[in-house]
Amino acid sequence: MVSIDYQGQTIEKQALRYQGKAKQVFQTNDPDILWVHYMDQATALNGKVKEMITGKGELNSAISHLLFDYLTQNGIENHYLTAVSKTDELVTTLDILPIEVVTRNYASGHFVSKFDVTPMQQLTPTVQEFYYKSDALDDPFINDSQILALGYANAVELAQLRQKSQDVNQLLRARFEKIGIHLVDFKLEFGRTRAGKVILADELSPDNMRLVDMRTGASLDKDVFRQHSGDVTIGYQDVLTRLQQED
Amino acid sequence: MVSIDYQGQTIEKQALRYQGKAKQVFQTNDPDILWVHYMDQATALNGKVKEMITGKGELNSAISHLLFDYLTQNGIENHYLTAVSKTDELVTTLDILPIEVVTRNYASGHFVSKFDVTPMQQLTPTVQEFYYKSDALDDPFINDSQILALGYANAVELAQLRQKSQDVNQLLRARFEKIGIHLVDFKLEFGRTRAGKVILADELSPDNMRLVDMRTGASLDKDVFRQHSGDVTIGYQDVLTRLQQED
Repeated sequence: MVSIDYQGQTIEKQALRYQGKAKQVFQTNDPDILWVHYMDQATALNGKVKEMITGKGELNSAISHLLFDYLTQNGIENHYLTAVSKTDELVTTLDILPIEVVTRNYASGHFVSKFDVTPMQQLTPTVQEFYYKSDALDDPFINDSQILALGYANAVELAQLRQKSQDVNQLLRARFEKIGIHLVDFKLEFGRTRAGKVILADELSPDNMRLVDMRTGASLDKDVFRQHSGDVTIGYQDVLTRLQQED
Repeated sequence: MVSIDYQGQTIEKQALRYQGKAKQVFQTNDPDILWVHYMDQATALNGKVKEMITGKGELNSAISHLLFDYLTQNGIENHYLTAVSKTDELVTTLDILPIEVVTRNYASGHFVSKFDVTPMQQLTPTVQEFYYKSDALDDPFINDSQILALGYANAVELAQLRQKSQDVNQLLRARFEKIGIHLVDFKLEFGRTRAGKVILADELSPDNMRLVDMRTGASLDKDVFRQHSGDVTIGYQDVLTRLQQED
């Protein structure tokens, strides 16, 4: 049995609760705490393409912890509690909202082809998009009135998702600019605490954000995997090293 | 040369300015007035399927005039000026906004498959969707922040599109309920007058709205054509007859 001491309490890793595209989530002996394992798996096209990439789990875990700590220091409540190992962490159990929030500072990915715009065109105001989390429906793009009519979230929650994503964007964008990286776009997920508060969940890694070197224009994120253009871990390691130097 | 007297002025039909899926729009000798001809053409799948349907132009023209008159009487400004013949009308020249507004009172069409919901499920609140008018891009579904970032409309215009579409929905829905028809969903277009005012444009016909008989559940709109389930003009004629009886 795997366990760790956390704030004077022994937390035991228990049954697998959910397996995502790049993470496994386990229950623990405390119903308010989950045990997350970052896998080396990479996927593209909503899971249709899969590959194992040695070291990706560790890199994502390290980057994510560093960014969650940074957000916590800047007043953004989130689910991250503590690291357990180089690939594992404890997080607060949340009732995850079925809405993914995508924030775009620059045009990239399918936004470019959908609207036939110039790649890396700066977007002002910043674009925010909601997607309904559903593998069966292929995570459809959704607007506020659809979310309300289908009961996926309420108006207060939508306002919170929008505001919190803006706050996170401002903080992350500034953090990455300091180390010569454009935060092009990123995906966030949120969940309700037992007390009903909406806080930030999921991970903060180059799996979920596009990061572009300001000087060279090189992708430092999962686009390298999506486009088969090289070893993704080189970019991820570069991001981590720069973040650590700045810390 | 074809011409008509309108408010003491002779309006001459001139060069074709634009050919749509079911309408032709001609310039006139007055730059503020366009001459619209309702064709018998029917299209589906954004123009990929085409067919000539005798009588459809006349029916759409008659229904549209009747509904524009009804909206005008109820304070909704629109581009319709007068009928010229059974298939032709004069309208105000507008700078058409590149945003289509779809309003959904009940789930139908691609909304059902996109979200895997029950057909004819009532949507509360009413769903409003914006689409960017672009044949090349296949009229993509778009949200407010995308519209603002890409400069397709400004925030004031979006608020107007939303409010005006709600007002039109309330009026049309009530009008159709009186004659035993559910207004399931519909598409509107708007344009700026020379003075910069945003007013309702396009047509108001079963080509652009889903209408379902409350008693039988039968489609009285273009879905009959889309689904090859019979002669669309029977439903269109039924709609017109009921609207005329109620008038």
